Amino acid sequence: MTRINVEKCARILREKDNILILTHAHPDGDTIGCGYGLCRALLKMGKKARVICADDIPKKYGYLFDDIEIPEFEEEFIVAVDVATEKLLGSLEEKYAGKIDLCIDHHPSNTGYAEQLLLNADAAAAAETVFKVIKALRVKIDRHIAECLFTGITTDTGCFKFASTTSNTYRAAAELIDLGADNGRINRIMFEQKPKSLAALERLAIEGMEFFCDEKICVITITQDMYKKSGSSEEETEAIPSLTRQIEGVEIGLTIKEKADGKSKCSIRTYDSVDASKLANAFGGGGHKQASACQFDCDYAEAKKLLLEKCEEVLSSGEVAKEDVWE
Amino acid sequence: MTRINVEKCARILREKDNILILTHAHPDGDTIGCGYGLCRALLKMGKKARVICADDIPKKYGYLFDDIEIPEFEEEFIVAVDVATEKLLGSLEEKYAGKIDLCIDHHPSNTGYAEQLLLNADAAAAAETVFKVIKALRVKIDRHIAECLFTGITTDTGCFKFASTTSNTYRAAAELIDLGADNGRINRIMFEQKPKSLAALERLAIEGMEFFCDEKICVITITQDMYKKSGSSEEETEAIPSLTRQIEGVEIGLTIKEKADGKSKCSIRTYDSVDASKLANAFGGGGHKQASACQFDCDYAEAKKLLLEKCEEVLSSGEVAKEDVWE
Repeated sequence: MTRINVEKCARILREKDNILILTHAHPDGDTIGCGYGLCRALLKMGKKARVICADDIPKKYGYLFDDIEIPEFEEEFIVAVDVATEKLLGSLEEKYAGKIDLCIDHHPSNTGYAEQLLLNADAAAAAETVFKVIKALRVKIDRHIAECLFTGITTDTGCFKFASTTSNTYRAAAELIDLGADNGRINRIMFEQKPKSLAALERLAIEGMEFFCDEKICVITITQDMYKKSGSSEEETEAIPSLTRQIEGVEIGLTIKEKADGKSKCSIRTYDSVDASKLANAFGGGGHKQASACQFDCDYAEAKKLLLEKCEEVLSSGEVAKEDVWE
Repeated sequence: MTRINVEKCARILREKDNILILTHAHPDGDTIGCGYGLCRALLKMGKKARVICADDIPKKYGYLFDDIEIPEFEEEFIVAVDVATEKLLGSLEEKYAGKIDLCIDHHPSNTGYAEQLLLNADAAAAAETVFKVIKALRVKIDRHIAECLFTGITTDTGCFKFASTTSNTYRAAAELIDLGADNGRINRIMFEQKPKSLAALERLAIEGMEFFCDEKICVITITQDMYKKSGSSEEETEAIPSLTRQIEGVEIGLTIKEKADGKSKCSIRTYDSVDASKLANAFGGGGHKQASACQFDCDYAEAKKLLLEKCEEVLSSGEVAKEDVWE
């Protein structure tokens, strides 16, 4: 693995053609925005490129790619965007593990699986770095590309709310708006429009909230039964974890979801001192300092028990978290 | 009334001393952020200045002014910030109406009540314009001033979410972060921390949501009884109106609150074609295109009836709203 900079990354892409772009499974706005932003730029350069994802892309992201005509080609160069580990490729892992030529990412936990790695761990979103790469490619950035990148930035920062948002993030957003991104519309689609089924699921989630450890831990459990009752589905649960962060005094928010096969997964949200990424690591997962996720082979009740034990351990060790002894 | 520009506004302020700054009643982050941002800048210039408000300032804004020592003085020059009409001064109206020397604002509906008016209706927040004035005053902007202005901008844009947010808004935010504003902390205080009492009130509000006019109108009613049940109070209801905007298909969101004296008030939120400010105007209120408010002398049930009649009239007139026949 070689670490490269933006200029080198652009030089490599300029030389290549028939480019396949991989996004992570359970796709979010950043991986999709990076994928289609880069794909559109490469198409504009006369190259062949396409984006693939292990899972269905939620409908709300349709405006990022609905108008693209995808050319037929046999892939010659493989790029992963916003993918910290090959495991996060989901069902694409088997086919592409060990074959990824280039990775553009912002996760400090990136395992260096690609031959060349452009990693900017200071960026709030991978889209900030893809924006720099596209500028270095000297592609004229149109409204569509700008909207892909703006979507990546705004979704990965919770609409510019998270502490990871830097002045450079705001500056990139300003540039993208000047390049044509309709920030009002995108932010409305990403953060304000909510199907009734999701509103119903949120109501059930809020009603079932549990508090532990002197109310420093807030747990939401989403069962298959709750999807049935609300008419909602797992695809819609992206916003649920943030509900745990909204209660005063909560330091760790756990959203535990029952999967269709009876196994479970958990989204972790934290504040200040507790590192969500390291908590998820303890269960083989990963993510960011304030937002992470992990999977369990056991059912949700057992997963909750395991998670609570670990969280209580962290919180009860007094000053531990503040001194960052996770390292 | 004379319309002035930023340079002229700075020239006027440079010449004056013993400056009283008025904010609007039911204060929000923009009026308070503008008030204390400007006050701090004037104090740094060696002038005497203070900020007053008709109502108590919610505790969460404490970091904007807790450290300031307010000098004693008799006011010689009166400035209003983010105040569209003298009526919005609340109980200060009686004393100061007709006596306001300077107004810095961003509401297109500003009535021109002040002798000199610096109005930038394109700004998403009045704090964007106060930022320009402070730069023109050539005051060295410290972290405290930056945090006042950042708070004004982020609160008036719903954390950079509303369509009113421009590339200049994002650019101002970037500058303020570089000047020391702790955006992560401020956004957390403003948008994520929620007392349990408010969470309980929100739950009651969501449970009682009503839909009208083919579900294009969503109504939340907050009664005095709901404050009692939840342990919440009117001071905490700032975030409730946005709940109406979150449901897919809703074009008008009405949050009707019963006041302690049995009278009522309404916060209006709209999307796209419907102008919230004009809806509020019909009942003697005002505000912005997507967010406005008005007061009623009648009880909440009667207010709801009046509001629904007006809203249904607007929506049922077919293409009316889109062609903006409110004018």
